[in-house]
Amino acid sequence: MPPNRVIGIDAGGTKLLGGVVDEDLVVHNRVHRLWRGADREETLRIVVEAVEEVRAVAPDVVGVGFGIPSLVSPAGVSVASVHLPLDDVPFGDLMAERLGLPVWVDNDVNAAVVAEHRYGAARGASHAVMMALGTGIGGGLILDGRVYRGATGAAGELGHMVVDVDGPPCPCGGRGCLEVLASGTAIGIAGTEAARAHPRSALGKALEADGAIRGSLVTELAHAGDELAAEAVCSVGRRLGAGLVSVLNVLDPEVAVIGGGAVAAGDLLLDPAREVLIAQGLGPPRMRVVPAHFGGESGMLGAALLALDGSRS
Amino acid sequence: MPPNRVIGIDAGGTKLLGGVVDEDLVVHNRVHRLWRGADREETLRIVVEAVEEVRAVAPDVVGVGFGIPSLVSPAGVSVASVHLPLDDVPFGDLMAERLGLPVWVDNDVNAAVVAEHRYGAARGASHAVMMALGTGIGGGLILDGRVYRGATGAAGELGHMVVDVDGPPCPCGGRGCLEVLASGTAIGIAGTEAARAHPRSALGKALEADGAIRGSLVTELAHAGDELAAEAVCSVGRRLGAGLVSVLNVLDPEVAVIGGGAVAAGDLLLDPAREVLIAQGLGPPRMRVVPAHFGGESGMLGAALLALDGSRS
Repeated sequence: MPPNRVIGIDAGGTKLLGGVVDEDLVVHNRVHRLWRGADREETLRIVVEAVEEVRAVAPDVVGVGFGIPSLVSPAGVSVASVHLPLDDVPFGDLMAERLGLPVWVDNDVNAAVVAEHRYGAARGASHAVMMALGTGIGGGLILDGRVYRGATGAAGELGHMVVDVDGPPCPCGGRGCLEVLASGTAIGIAGTEAARAHPRSALGKALEADGAIRGSLVTELAHAGDELAAEAVCSVGRRLGAGLVSVLNVLDPEVAVIGGGAVAAGDLLLDPAREVLIAQGLGPPRMRVVPAHFGGESGMLGAALLALDGSRS
Repeated sequence: MPPNRVIGIDAGGTKLLGGVVDEDLVVHNRVHRLWRGADREETLRIVVEAVEEVRAVAPDVVGVGFGIPSLVSPAGVSVASVHLPLDDVPFGDLMAERLGLPVWVDNDVNAAVVAEHRYGAARGASHAVMMALGTGIGGGLILDGRVYRGATGAAGELGHMVVDVDGPPCPCGGRGCLEVLASGTAIGIAGTEAARAHPRSALGKALEADGAIRGSLVTELAHAGDELAAEAVCSVGRRLGAGLVSVLNVLDPEVAVIGGGAVAAGDLLLDPAREVLIAQGLGPPRMRVVPAHFGGESGMLGAALLALDGSRS
């Protein structure tokens, strides 16, 4: 008998990434969608369509796991979401009905940190955190070996630690949250500011040509040796480090796993963060700061694990 | 047979508070010491002298519990301390030797949160945090019903969450930590700034007369209706609120207990904090923010509980 296969869907703030995943965590088919700006119904429609696309080539899947950037209730309701129009949506029930398949739903980074803890960069740790740097910053916590959810299931929102009390407004309604200062979006903003200050630089020319600078471009230029771009990434890395100081001082985990699209910047981003952490964290240096083992796919694999675990029990 | 009695000692950054405590948590005799500026040997000498003072009237005590503002190892070593000269001091062994009594040692606010959780303001909660606002800000966490200590025992330092990434230096070596902005000391600083800006105010006259403004004076004036003082307390309360936003978003506890000397400011401090929390925290309003049931004595009672629990097992 062939092993169970499931579909894992990581529904990020800007894009959806899905795949058919087997019990060995091998990904057989992938699907991508860009959806920034879609309304609620359009967002749900895109999710269904993406699932149907991969299901067409893998009709044997036994269920679908979803990681969504929301506060998710135990019944699979998306109670509130900063980056998708999914406030108060019975996401699990809707998907089960539209897909005619068993579905499991959790917060995207709660799912991702399970994948990294069980098979990836946080393997063997009793206490681990994950931050996924993308449109915003998602967070997930493993405390004493298990996902920590708090009193209402809303815990782990590391992107919404306040790191700049009088800072810029955050899409969440707060001020000076870490995600405003250290997300993938923030790398793009730092690059845009550098481009404006230096119009004859590579960043400046890109801004003139395209009218906007995305974080991925800043990262590419930084990797190619562009000093201005590297400096922009470094400035964001230092702010990420301030967030990691809070994580260390409050949670004292063994490892902080950094994932999401922005971790493509690698040590250009993580080394400045580590420097701030070591200089400013309490006590002896000890928390490792490592990139996600599964890169940008931890969320999709974690979503698949929801379905693999769920279909076994 | 009379119930067991123990000595509980709360060793704060500015003062020591101790007492003889019985199994019903009744305090029979108290002892106070001010010790700001004492060096390591002097600090240890004051601790021993304070214990001997109360022991003289209660020679039947079966042990001593200490809450100290340090990272405390399981063996009772004070590994590092921001506010007392107790880095790398085998505190438990030293005290056991000098006192000839069984001793138990923990971080001061880890002890305090147990007292508040078991008998006080956090009773019945599965997830609770405590912040003790004094010279600095100490923190303690109850997660899933138990003290959460992290990988190395250093967790719960809520005063050293970074809330102002480019903010003023903190005694811990970091920058912009919550304790710089929202401790009892910070209330004194806010009062001093107000006094300088308004030399003919009550605060201004106090500054001229005494050369310094302490947080307790600002609080007294605020309670007496002085608007400038109330505004200073309010500004600190709002920054405390930013710290509570981080606590809510990361840990999602049912209740945050605010203790330490500065909680004498009561709702003048807590209401602005609650307003910021409700306006800026993720999800529906839910985390209660309450003063410590035991006021400034949670730490002493928690320290006594260490000894009461320890002497029973």
